[in-house]
Amino acid sequence: MTIINLNGDMGESFGRYTLGDDAALIQVVKSASIACGFHAGDPDVMATAVRLAAASGVSIGAHPSFPDLQGFGRRAMRMRPDEVENMVAYQIGALQGVASACGAEVTHVKPHGALNNIAHDDADYARALARAIRAVDPNLIFVANACSQMVRAGEAEGLHVAYEAYADRTYDDAGRLTSRLVEGALITDPQAAVRQVLSFLDAGGLVTRGGRTIRTRIDTFCAHGDEPSGVAVMTAVRRALEARGTSIVTLPEMKL
Amino acid sequence: MTIINLNGDMGESFGRYTLGDDAALIQVVKSASIACGFHAGDPDVMATAVRLAAASGVSIGAHPSFPDLQGFGRRAMRMRPDEVENMVAYQIGALQGVASACGAEVTHVKPHGALNNIAHDDADYARALARAIRAVDPNLIFVANACSQMVRAGEAEGLHVAYEAYADRTYDDAGRLTSRLVEGALITDPQAAVRQVLSFLDAGGLVTRGGRTIRTRIDTFCAHGDEPSGVAVMTAVRRALEARGTSIVTLPEMKL
Amino acid sequence: MTIINLNGDMGESFGRYTLGDDAALIQVVKSASIACGFHAGDPDVMATAVRLAAASGVSIGAHPSFPDLQGFGRRAMRMRPDEVENMVAYQIGALQGVASACGAEVTHVKPHGALNNIAHDDADYARALARAIRAVDPNLIFVANACSQMVRAGEAEGLHVAYEAYADRTYDDAGRLTSRLVEGALITDPQAAVRQVLSFLDAGGLVTRGGRTIRTRIDTFCAHGDEPSGVAVMTAVRRALEARGTSIVTLPEMKL
Amino acid sequence: MTIINLNGDMGESFGRYTLGDDAALIQVVKSASIACGFHAGDPDVMATAVRLAAASGVSIGAHPSFPDLQGFGRRAMRMRPDEVENMVAYQIGALQGVASACGAEVTHVKPHGALNNIAHDDADYARALARAIRAVDPNLIFVANACSQMVRAGEAEGLHVAYEAYADRTYDDAGRLTSRLVEGALITDPQAAVRQVLSFLDAGGLVTRGGRTIRTRIDTFCAHGDEPSGVAVMTAVRRALEARGTSIVTLPEMKL
Repeated sequence: MTIINLNGDMGESFGRYTLGDDAALIQVVKSASIACGFHAGDPDVMATAVRLAAASGVSIGAHPSFPDLQGFGRRAMRMRPDEVENMVAYQIGALQGVASACGAEVTHVKPHGALNNIAHDDADYARALARAIRAVDPNLIFVANACSQMVRAGEAEGLHVAYEAYADRTYDDAGRLTSRLVEGALITDPQAAVRQVLSFLDAGGLVTRGGRTIRTRIDTFCAHGDEPSGVAVMTAVRRALEARGTSIVTLPEMKL
Repeated sequence: MTIINLNGDMGESFGRYTLGDDAALIQVVKSASIACGFHAGDPDVMATAVRLAAASGVSIGAHPSFPDLQGFGRRAMRMRPDEVENMVAYQIGALQGVASACGAEVTHVKPHGALNNIAHDDADYARALARAIRAVDPNLIFVANACSQMVRAGEAEGLHVAYEAYADRTYDDAGRLTSRLVEGALITDPQAAVRQVLSFLDAGGLVTRGGRTIRTRIDTFCAHGDEPSGVAVMTAVRRALEARGTSIVTLPEMKL
Repeated sequence: MTIINLNGDMGESFGRYTLGDDAALIQVVKSASIACGFHAGDPDVMATAVRLAAASGVSIGAHPSFPDLQGFGRRAMRMRPDEVENMVAYQIGALQGVASACGAEVTHVKPHGALNNIAHDDADYARALARAIRAVDPNLIFVANACSQMVRAGEAEGLHVAYEAYADRTYDDAGRLTSRLVEGALITDPQAAVRQVLSFLDAGGLVTRGGRTIRTRIDTFCAHGDEPSGVAVMTAVRRALEARGTSIVTLPEMKL
Repeated sequence: MTIINLNGDMGESFGRYTLGDDAALIQVVKSASIACGFHAGDPDVMATAVRLAAASGVSIGAHPSFPDLQGFGRRAMRMRPDEVENMVAYQIGALQGVASACGAEVTHVKPHGALNNIAHDDADYARALARAIRAVDPNLIFVANACSQMVRAGEAEGLHVAYEAYADRTYDDAGRLTSRLVEGALITDPQAAVRQVLSFLDAGGLVTRGGRTIRTRIDTFCAHGDEPSGVAVMTAVRRALEARGTSIVTLPEMKL
């Protein structure tokens, strides 16, 4: 029987501000990447998200970012790789602290926003991320964009790597997420997302906007919890996968 | 043979800003409380302080604070106890993440500044601190002001509590640190600090500005690393203690 | 003919986070207090709010706060009065800079959240606020809780003071806003808010939860833009006032 | 008689942290660019710097930066030009607010760090800066690197532009500051700085590391106040200029 993971970003509220519908998203994903206070999330929001995930049998991951609350971590910053490494270790640890205090465990790490985008292609950043993860805990699963430098760096460091594709973002012919500045970068129609997910699985890789197939393993699909469409997209994807007989499991259950 | 711990605050630089002389302080203390980014410290500063402590055989602790970089954590903030608890778990975890990445271990927690001052008397805050520490890791040593609500709360939670007194701060007749707003609150003369430390040990407790003795166990003495006088004070105290045949050990070696 | 001002808080979104319905609120108030980045608001949010107000004939004010984005400026902080003064001058200026760049003008200042609550009773804080306002521009109108130390301090500094009452918050017998921790502190039913406003105008002062009347001038009523009920409350209040023949004007038009 | 301006960065301390020797620097420069809280400076530090400058007959400017206290504004961030524009208007205004409260006036604007470096070559950023300055106050002098896009953008917006060269930074053959990552980027020897300044004035432009001369007007020389060598460099430069009969004046006195 085929298994796959669905992951979503959670805990992206902050103080007085609510973002996303974590209570709904938690029903459809099996792994949650929780903001660590740098692009979103505060210790209270993090604790709430951890408890929600733990109570729902959803595995927990850290979602580290550049320090940019105003830009939601989506503005590129130029840091040295050692700065990236320390910054990521800090954020993983912070979530581990909150999770321990809630009796839960952090089992994966997935970089957020511009940090993720840069490390897609930049081997120095990708290696800094992989080193930080391994140094904090070599059992942490590195959720990395399929076809990215992060996959290579994670494997070079001996990490468990989950190859990730997006259900609600289109890809360009180089295997990168289409820039958010481009029309059609984000898929908000649940059925279009289902078509993308199934086409990827059938093709054994990413199918780009240009119609190219880039062959790759895919372990997990993501949709954006901060988009109003996120829950509907993930719900439709989950149903479509289950209808094909695919079992949706947590990242640790993937045995990567 | 008598043993005692000397602890100092470290890693209180931030970005372009340098504060304290960690390289000198590390020679005289046996435990270092490292800022966690909320009143001072950034992930790079934290990593540097952790490596320095680990290389020097000095045990490492988290030094959590209110989120107030501008005020160096010395301005009181009114938070709910659950906010305090999550905030402290976050900071302990953040330092644990950085420490793990450096191959080192966090073995104690000591609250900083206004958070420490409020929790001296406020049982709700004291219990929130103790709960956070126990929830993150019940083996962490809680470094708590002697004669404070923190000592009680820590013991009620079953934590290892290190009773702390200051070498370079005077005490009022209620057993509290004299407010920094009062002349003479800070002892900058190393020999005056030595006299205070020896008088505490001889009296078996805190000797106040008013001449009162408040009997208490004392496990560790602290001096302020951010003060220019801190290293000289700690050096003099260490020599005086060693001259009496007292052995200066790390907090874990205290077997609290 | 009677005139009165209605004011609302605006520009309390931040980055990726939206809070309140400024486009709806702007239709019913005549003065907008715009967050200055310390409890909410970023330069982009501020510019958007300024342009919206200016285009709607709504006068603009600065809404300075303690530096506490996570706590939305609602957690008390202990600062020295000179720190408050500089902090408020900074925030007024920041909004003036953004407003100038948008071709608009800042005409009032209203403290936010915990800063406002403390300065209600604390004469040192109240005077620090008044001094900051006068020092930046003595023509700025100080929107101050009726019956507060701020009114006194503003008048002692020779400022134009707008006496403010809340449409959607109840008052205790000391003339303070009922604490948000108390049930019934916030009025979310528009008709209940209308009843409160009319009772205040008829009684010539604040009518407290205990039924006491505290006589005072009232120049402006406020409702909370960050509450879902805020727009409905303000709309009902405006209609009720206009039905009585009261003219709703901007703060500068009040000629205080 | 020849006139020229010397400018220095000031107010780059923050809270508990002291950086630079403003009291010494103020004796040798005639214009001070004061940090606005984004890379350094807090409202108290800003007020202190403003008062010091005003008392010394030194003209005051805003020194806006990317929001990056940890990186001291020296890490590039990718923002949209409209974000840059609002961010700069906010910072200019913030300093104007503090300056007004101190009875002083802001007369110039000089971008800091990575913002300045990017806008050297990036016409979109340069225009965003120029628009922000003009929109806040068209009489503000734009202190812009000689040979940069900022000079062009400032003049296109009709601003008074002060062409700036560094006394303590070397230039590459494209007229850019040598990267700080390159050995010899910073000149710490006062006599070497004097030689550079005099060679620029004699050549009528920038003399690069490669020996090229790039002809340009120069209105003002800068040295870095956050470097230990800054004051000594500026003192030597001032003496050398005065020995040649050059008069050192404030930026407004330059009548640009």
